[in-house]
Amino acid sequence: MKAAPSPEEIRRHNLGTLLRHVHLTGQASRAELAERMGLNRSTILALTADLTAAGLVSEELPRTTGRAGRPSLVVRPESSRVYVLALDVGADRLTAARVGLGGVVLARGNVPRPPDPFDPDAVVAELAAQARRLVRAARPDTVCVGIGAAFSGIVRREDGVVRLSPNIGWRDVPFGAELGRRLGMGLSVSVGNDADLGALAERERGAGAGLDDLIYLHGDVGIGGGIIVGGRLLSGEGGYGGEVGHMVVNPGGRPCGCGSRGCLEAEAGELALLDAAGRRGPGGREGVAAIVDAADRGDVAARDALHRVGGWLGQGVANLVNIFNPAMVIFGGVLRDIYLGAAAQVRSRLALAGLGVARERVRLRTSALGEEAILMGAAELAFADVLADPLETLLRGKNPLP
Amino acid sequence: MKAAPSPEEIRRHNLGTLLRHVHLTGQASRAELAERMGLNRSTILALTADLTAAGLVSEELPRTTGRAGRPSLVVRPESSRVYVLALDVGADRLTAARVGLGGVVLARGNVPRPPDPFDPDAVVAELAAQARRLVRAARPDTVCVGIGAAFSGIVRREDGVVRLSPNIGWRDVPFGAELGRRLGMGLSVSVGNDADLGALAERERGAGAGLDDLIYLHGDVGIGGGIIVGGRLLSGEGGYGGEVGHMVVNPGGRPCGCGSRGCLEAEAGELALLDAAGRRGPGGREGVAAIVDAADRGDVAARDALHRVGGWLGQGVANLVNIFNPAMVIFGGVLRDIYLGAAAQVRSRLALAGLGVARERVRLRTSALGEEAILMGAAELAFADVLADPLETLLRGKNPLP
Repeated sequence: MKAAPSPEEIRRHNLGTLLRHVHLTGQASRAELAERMGLNRSTILALTADLTAAGLVSEELPRTTGRAGRPSLVVRPESSRVYVLALDVGADRLTAARVGLGGVVLARGNVPRPPDPFDPDAVVAELAAQARRLVRAARPDTVCVGIGAAFSGIVRREDGVVRLSPNIGWRDVPFGAELGRRLGMGLSVSVGNDADLGALAERERGAGAGLDDLIYLHGDVGIGGGIIVGGRLLSGEGGYGGEVGHMVVNPGGRPCGCGSRGCLEAEAGELALLDAAGRRGPGGREGVAAIVDAADRGDVAARDALHRVGGWLGQGVANLVNIFNPAMVIFGGVLRDIYLGAAAQVRSRLALAGLGVARERVRLRTSALGEEAILMGAAELAFADVLADPLETLLRGKNPLP
Repeated sequence: MKAAPSPEEIRRHNLGTLLRHVHLTGQASRAELAERMGLNRSTILALTADLTAAGLVSEELPRTTGRAGRPSLVVRPESSRVYVLALDVGADRLTAARVGLGGVVLARGNVPRPPDPFDPDAVVAELAAQARRLVRAARPDTVCVGIGAAFSGIVRREDGVVRLSPNIGWRDVPFGAELGRRLGMGLSVSVGNDADLGALAERERGAGAGLDDLIYLHGDVGIGGGIIVGGRLLSGEGGYGGEVGHMVVNPGGRPCGCGSRGCLEAEAGELALLDAAGRRGPGGREGVAAIVDAADRGDVAARDALHRVGGWLGQGVANLVNIFNPAMVIFGGVLRDIYLGAAAQVRSRLALAGLGVARERVRLRTSALGEEAILMGAAELAFADVLADPLETLLRGKNPLP
């Protein structure tokens, strides 16, 4: 049982709630904020004044107004002034971006893969160099309030250690701490699993907006899952939940990087599709897209490969629907293309193995944020502090680089 | 954003919190309550006085005291005066009990299976008759504050409709409403899935006490799952989550009552074990126990059957561990015996298919509440109202029967 919150705690909470609302919607009038937050207009006025003074939001006339009379001012996030660094480490790409409050990508750079793409030091060095270039290119009056990184692997959230990534070949690498040190900005780096972050982003700004129960499946070289249960990300006892790519769907089937056989990612991932289609490289989105295109043009081997892989994907989806009864399953990364090419197989396997009550209302969708889903999720992770405690976090923000 | 709670809301919340604490621990001194709830002693005194006046708790001298000086009074639940009806509908048994505040089973009766065990009217009539006998046998100064029922099937929590139970053969039966009407006590009946309630009970009073992430697997004729994620029961968008018995572990395997093949319950349930051992009835706990006993005595067919079924159970557990990263998996119902007879197979499959990081700290345990787990879960469901709002709920409690 907690004691009642102090006025200062209430104010801080309200500042964060207001800022979050403006961050997610892009703009809101004081009247909308008052209604949304259940507070009176004078309180909204005071909160907005505090955030404006801190340079987090600005108030201006709305661009259009449909009503007569004096238009209500709208509150907008200071997207070009307050930003985070969002980083994404996938099995076949490195990305860095500056993302402004409000979720606006201000600048981005694809980071060259280092000569040894599996060497943590080299990966960290390239990422840090690109991120520092982005920060240096920012205007002097801007401020970086957080750094978030997505990683294609199993991550310990509290300290950013990559516990295991079969596809990148890392085990127990202190990625977040090393990256923070190399960046030298005096800010810590929050690290999350890529699919978890994709799920959060799709729920906040994408296909699953407003849903409390959804599953985001991300295809890279492997398959990751981000699962929202009752409005919260499933993390599990140690923070390693959601590894749906290693659910065995075909016992004794194809060997998997994890050491087991017949895992969802071994049967329905990018490599399974390339193998089934009898192709060797290139993998990644180009390779998958080429197979989907070939199938569309009537290539029998490509079509059969897609159907086979789609069947296993549907099997995995059916299991997850029975276990979670989600409102939506979202396919992202290369699974987006695989799903689009094999939707009939996925749906028919779901109809067969999914319980009627569990699947009767589930919607299958492709990622609305597409290529940006993971990066936007990393940005949201980085914005978490400033949204929880706007004024304190701003004081700790950094720019320019020392 | 909610407004600050009123003093009356705070008082009601505190009354419920205090009562819940006493309900779960059996007794507590005022000093313990003050520390636990973060309130001062005079507030605890006032709350306890209110609950005592309402007849929900009593204060008395502790039975033993290790210290000199005046001993602190302890607060105990009025278990013999305030009770709920807890009912359990399994595929092969009907049970009704009076359970007192504090979780004390005051009286119980196994309800005879009606001539047609699949006829909802007959089942409801037998359950209601037994429950009314239990209420009539109670002292006149007692009060029933709630009715909870566990059902072996997929249940819609908000109205107690049984959506589907392949093993009992029901579909869209308004079980809760019918049972409430037949009981005629003026109280509504809360209905939950049996495995969900088992999970709650094991977390409150059993093997998983205090854990925020656990999975309870219940074997009956089928296999049900109750899953606690981040301290809350996984329910899913429509409330039908946790149907792990219909996760396909062996594609193309044994046919399942749900219409699919190779589901966990088809491969690792009671019927799979009986079939693998070449036995026909009796099923239930006796049948499973007989096979485990035979295997212990060296019966090769029984041992092979247990190993086969244990392997599939381990496959299902490995998938769930990868997906949920739980702190504990608890085996209840007939799965308790199956697990005890095949623990090596379960663990070896988990070691093979479970990711190291996900399984490194998971504990596999049998149900601590055993036969009582489901019934105690139904009782907790029935106590929910009085623990949320003690004084209001008491006013609505009923006894004797009209």
